[in-house]
Amino acid sequence: MSCNLGNNVKITIFGQSHSEAIGVVIDGLPAGFEIDMDKVAAFMARRAPGNSNLSTPRKEADDVKIISGVVEGITCGAPLCAIIENTNTRSGDYSKLRTLPRPSHSDFAAMLKHGGFNDIRGGGNFSGRLTAPLCFAGAVCMQMLEEKGIRIGAHISSIGKVDGKRFDPVNVSSDDFDLLSKKSFPVIDEKQGELMRKEIYDAKGNGDSVGGTIECAIVGMPVGIGDPIFDGIENRISSAVFGIPAIKGIEFGSGFDCARMLGSENNDNFVNTDGKILTATNNHGGILGGISSGMPIIFRCAVKPTPSIGIEQQSVNTETREEDKLVIGGRHDPCIVPRAVPCVESAAAIVVADYLLR
Amino acid sequence: MSCNLGNNVKITIFGQSHSEAIGVVIDGLPAGFEIDMDKVAAFMARRAPGNSNLSTPRKEADDVKIISGVVEGITCGAPLCAIIENTNTRSGDYSKLRTLPRPSHSDFAAMLKHGGFNDIRGGGNFSGRLTAPLCFAGAVCMQMLEEKGIRIGAHISSIGKVDGKRFDPVNVSSDDFDLLSKKSFPVIDEKQGELMRKEIYDAKGNGDSVGGTIECAIVGMPVGIGDPIFDGIENRISSAVFGIPAIKGIEFGSGFDCARMLGSENNDNFVNTDGKILTATNNHGGILGGISSGMPIIFRCAVKPTPSIGIEQQSVNTETREEDKLVIGGRHDPCIVPRAVPCVESAAAIVVADYLLR
Amino acid sequence: MSCNLGNNVKITIFGQSHSEAIGVVIDGLPAGFEIDMDKVAAFMARRAPGNSNLSTPRKEADDVKIISGVVEGITCGAPLCAIIENTNTRSGDYSKLRTLPRPSHSDFAAMLKHGGFNDIRGGGNFSGRLTAPLCFAGAVCMQMLEEKGIRIGAHISSIGKVDGKRFDPVNVSSDDFDLLSKKSFPVIDEKQGELMRKEIYDAKGNGDSVGGTIECAIVGMPVGIGDPIFDGIENRISSAVFGIPAIKGIEFGSGFDCARMLGSENNDNFVNTDGKILTATNNHGGILGGISSGMPIIFRCAVKPTPSIGIEQQSVNTETREEDKLVIGGRHDPCIVPRAVPCVESAAAIVVADYLLR
Amino acid sequence: MSCNLGNNVKITIFGQSHSEAIGVVIDGLPAGFEIDMDKVAAFMARRAPGNSNLSTPRKEADDVKIISGVVEGITCGAPLCAIIENTNTRSGDYSKLRTLPRPSHSDFAAMLKHGGFNDIRGGGNFSGRLTAPLCFAGAVCMQMLEEKGIRIGAHISSIGKVDGKRFDPVNVSSDDFDLLSKKSFPVIDEKQGELMRKEIYDAKGNGDSVGGTIECAIVGMPVGIGDPIFDGIENRISSAVFGIPAIKGIEFGSGFDCARMLGSENNDNFVNTDGKILTATNNHGGILGGISSGMPIIFRCAVKPTPSIGIEQQSVNTETREEDKLVIGGRHDPCIVPRAVPCVESAAAIVVADYLLR
Repeated sequence: MSCNLGNNVKITIFGQSHSEAIGVVIDGLPAGFEIDMDKVAAFMARRAPGNSNLSTPRKEADDVKIISGVVEGITCGAPLCAIIENTNTRSGDYSKLRTLPRPSHSDFAAMLKHGGFNDIRGGGNFSGRLTAPLCFAGAVCMQMLEEKGIRIGAHISSIGKVDGKRFDPVNVSSDDFDLLSKKSFPVIDEKQGELMRKEIYDAKGNGDSVGGTIECAIVGMPVGIGDPIFDGIENRISSAVFGIPAIKGIEFGSGFDCARMLGSENNDNFVNTDGKILTATNNHGGILGGISSGMPIIFRCAVKPTPSIGIEQQSVNTETREEDKLVIGGRHDPCIVPRAVPCVESAAAIVVADYLLR
Repeated sequence: MSCNLGNNVKITIFGQSHSEAIGVVIDGLPAGFEIDMDKVAAFMARRAPGNSNLSTPRKEADDVKIISGVVEGITCGAPLCAIIENTNTRSGDYSKLRTLPRPSHSDFAAMLKHGGFNDIRGGGNFSGRLTAPLCFAGAVCMQMLEEKGIRIGAHISSIGKVDGKRFDPVNVSSDDFDLLSKKSFPVIDEKQGELMRKEIYDAKGNGDSVGGTIECAIVGMPVGIGDPIFDGIENRISSAVFGIPAIKGIEFGSGFDCARMLGSENNDNFVNTDGKILTATNNHGGILGGISSGMPIIFRCAVKPTPSIGIEQQSVNTETREEDKLVIGGRHDPCIVPRAVPCVESAAAIVVADYLLR
Repeated sequence: MSCNLGNNVKITIFGQSHSEAIGVVIDGLPAGFEIDMDKVAAFMARRAPGNSNLSTPRKEADDVKIISGVVEGITCGAPLCAIIENTNTRSGDYSKLRTLPRPSHSDFAAMLKHGGFNDIRGGGNFSGRLTAPLCFAGAVCMQMLEEKGIRIGAHISSIGKVDGKRFDPVNVSSDDFDLLSKKSFPVIDEKQGELMRKEIYDAKGNGDSVGGTIECAIVGMPVGIGDPIFDGIENRISSAVFGIPAIKGIEFGSGFDCARMLGSENNDNFVNTDGKILTATNNHGGILGGISSGMPIIFRCAVKPTPSIGIEQQSVNTETREEDKLVIGGRHDPCIVPRAVPCVESAAAIVVADYLLR
Repeated sequence: MSCNLGNNVKITIFGQSHSEAIGVVIDGLPAGFEIDMDKVAAFMARRAPGNSNLSTPRKEADDVKIISGVVEGITCGAPLCAIIENTNTRSGDYSKLRTLPRPSHSDFAAMLKHGGFNDIRGGGNFSGRLTAPLCFAGAVCMQMLEEKGIRIGAHISSIGKVDGKRFDPVNVSSDDFDLLSKKSFPVIDEKQGELMRKEIYDAKGNGDSVGGTIECAIVGMPVGIGDPIFDGIENRISSAVFGIPAIKGIEFGSGFDCARMLGSENNDNFVNTDGKILTATNNHGGILGGISSGMPIIFRCAVKPTPSIGIEQQSVNTETREEDKLVIGGRHDPCIVPRAVPCVESAAAIVVADYLLR
């Protein structure tokens, strides 16, 4: 189903941008774990809007209210349900969208699917706002995984035409993640980060938006986890990551670059590193035959430019079938990439939790 | 599970490279459909080895034997099981791999997962040979979809450093597919095809291998199919396509390119085309909010260079833990891309069949 | 997972007896349906405690708050989440249960499963209270099914040693259901109903409890729905009905009686009834080979006597491992059967909705 | 899907009574287990027809051919596929059934579902013959579970109006199972067994058939396994057991009897038995709140009389819609219960394996 992910640790996301609340049910979490809610809040703040002049000026507190599954701060084994009330909504902004769908938004497809009964306000359940409960689930999973020595981190690897530095795929470590998670604009190389920010400001100045890429790594993953064919780590992570609106591509290890390489360049020789069998390079991205190899798991995903732009666009009136001009007002992120970083981490965390927590 | 795909039309793949047989169970096919087995055989021949001097000289007939689900050539509603016997196996070739795993192969990960009991012969159930039953399932689904006006086609979009022409994402049609499916080396632009072939010959000449990309399109898809969040078309297709060994990346529509674009460049304006609401461009690849928009569905995937190469590589002896040199003998594809083309079509067909056949 | 049911219409139940709230997510409902909330409330009132002197004197309003999936009273295609706040809880009652588990309650098993971290208050998520969101989901599904001409009804078929009249398995109709749903003690034959009530009063008077059976029928089910082997109507309904705490058996059609019968007695001859092919008798309970036959679907289930009784029982102290006496105080239902009637209807409705609504 | 069972250990059954072969794929079995094929054959012989004058005189060898998942007798972690060829088929017997469906058979429902394209020969994939691969899967799971100290056994608890002795629900042990598994007519009390046999002979003599019940026990089950609500042991076992054709009811522990009991009678007091917390009685059948309690798991199921009888019955011609008489010729079991005993054990074994093997 559209709102479910996972088999052992299973999350169910619900809510629309302007419904009473949004939320998530997490089933299958082990009992007896004390959730650090401050840490959860800090994680979710990385996704929340209004953090900087790079994102939408909307302010949403994203206060999480746990309504089941936790007793005195400790998981009790029952499904954990958490909700976030939708407080800061301006429904009036969206009245015209039903007849004049926004280019590259879900409006049109949702209307066709639901016969016009879809909740158009704020994008309904297609809204990026649904990534707030995703991040809550991710934050909880990450805390539990950390206890098992597994860490997950992501950063902005490019914005528009500016490429940033990537993780060292062999030596990436939790130290890198600690550093990145404190940055409001998480990049490895600050100089490139400046140029990336400029891409966003420029887009914003023109009423436009810009895309980018996010790179994510998982370290500490035990070896031998996963399966070949349809249930490998790549299958599961890709399936989860495409759950984040605006993701249009994903690649593991050397990814699309390996399509341009020779086998002798792309193959990762095995080496004995302090008694462990590892690989000298990590073009395979920590996954061989769908299974974890013991190297860091590495993937990157492509984030499209926010479809909501201030520039005039063309649409078609769904009633009259006449072509018409459209200018989208309201408050938009000129670039969704920075806020999507914790979402990508969350998607990865939920997948890894599904493999390892139960 | 590792061998299952789909919810309504569900396939279960089994077998190892050197087991008695490989095969597939397809559950959920509608009853009353007459399968054209000649067409199935023609489709599967596109994947079979030994077709040209670009692939491994192994000859495998891939004779499909249907053992259930069909009565006098017509589906009866019971699960269809088809098997392909493994006749041309040389198990002797693989004796040393257990102690000296091949770089970038699944050997090592499989050994860790299964405590050394995995079937090492020919890669066991990690073998590319398992794509034969995938293609059988794909061929059957494609025939059924064709009756509903849905067509699927793929081609080689690049080999090594040579890029080929891509589909016209707005106007790609079944005519393109008919043309491509007859080519032993399916490319749109034959001149570029020549250069691609040269990349393969060069790699082969050096005992090396080379990667590439495959582009796939689905036309005739009804609008409004799919779901947001975790069960959209992208989630499902990516999950299926990563079921093909050697795939390391996937992108939909403008894909990773959109990460470098502005919203004003990437957004697809709506237009009225003969009374239908379509888009002027197709950077969204036919999918908005996980749902089909009515435009052709377009995706590309990255295929890594075959890890089996004749050049000396380094591995680690899993018993002594000492590093050692390894030369892989035997028969290998210098480039798996041409044979992977029908596999990608099949993965897409199975996903679409799951949405539409029941 | 423990809290999920269904494939196309999927429900996810969450909450504990004393958590902030309990609730349900229903995914896959068609968009555009106006939910009659008065009808929902009337249905849920049949399950609510405090309705008569036959049930626990606890009063719980069971006010349902819809927090997503509905816009201006009409389903929008997004997952519908509804919550019910837990207002009337007396947590103090349950303090001793952790060391001295109640006989035939889930306390002991839950403690073993969750290492003692389970929510012991009011039975946690093992509580019968979780049937409130089940009934909400059932009420919504029943409204939607009613539009398709499908009706579901259940009644008390026995209490203790008193058997009531059963449905006429051939001619049961929605008129029967309309009549029964208005009764606070839904039985077909009021005289037997009096005797059943007496069984409950007697048990109550002795601080004891008593079991019973519930019979449920589904009429208007289209023919040809369901599958053989593991996914027939019996498999799905049984799996759903055992989701109601206290159910210990289920039988379809002639059920356990057919085990005592000859084939010539149990077989249902086909007859032509007004041009329709039906059966003269309905020992098969409307299901042949897992598939609906066009006759009413009939099943009965066994409800155990409430395990909470006022009579002294023996338990074992889980810390000292010493045997000890236990008297359960507080408020209990002397018989859960009347309140379980709408729960059984709901379980059936959710299963049928899963088959037919999407 | 109709042919799938399980989440971690997942079986997929395929084939029709008269297709080339029937078989099963078992995915998720641990690697490194040596399957004792003699033991498998002995187990399957208990289900095979032609064993005694109580069953159909058809002889079917049920020779199992493993075609994947096993290397030199040892599981390798890949999906295990086993097939059984259909050799002894007389398709001519079934020609008239399409127009004149047999009472209480699946013919009619299958025809409606599959538009007349269902495989009518021998009941197609609705045939009891499909329990042969079920028993193969069960036999393999039971061997693996035995290594973990878990044993499963079943017996005939009644035939027609003759009740046999039941298991002692507190003290049933593997010794009981060893004894029963050697009997061609597995009953606890031989005297009652004689009377049961007479019921079958009498039915057979009259061209009739007779039903019965089977009781099954699982001992050695670890405590704390299972989940409340929709994924408890009862939900899963019932769902699996209804996968056996002819099962029309299931009850756990005291089952339908508990519906007639008081709480003080049905509740199972906890006792300290050699330091273990167990219960003095076992009316709960080893399952509390869906979770294993440490007591033997006990359930019984109702098997309907074989619908194929030699006595004249009434049906309706599906073409002319006229009522007509029908006499079923051919070879039939006058009572399916004895052969269903290992099927019930298998269904239970597969469910337990799904919980515990991975």
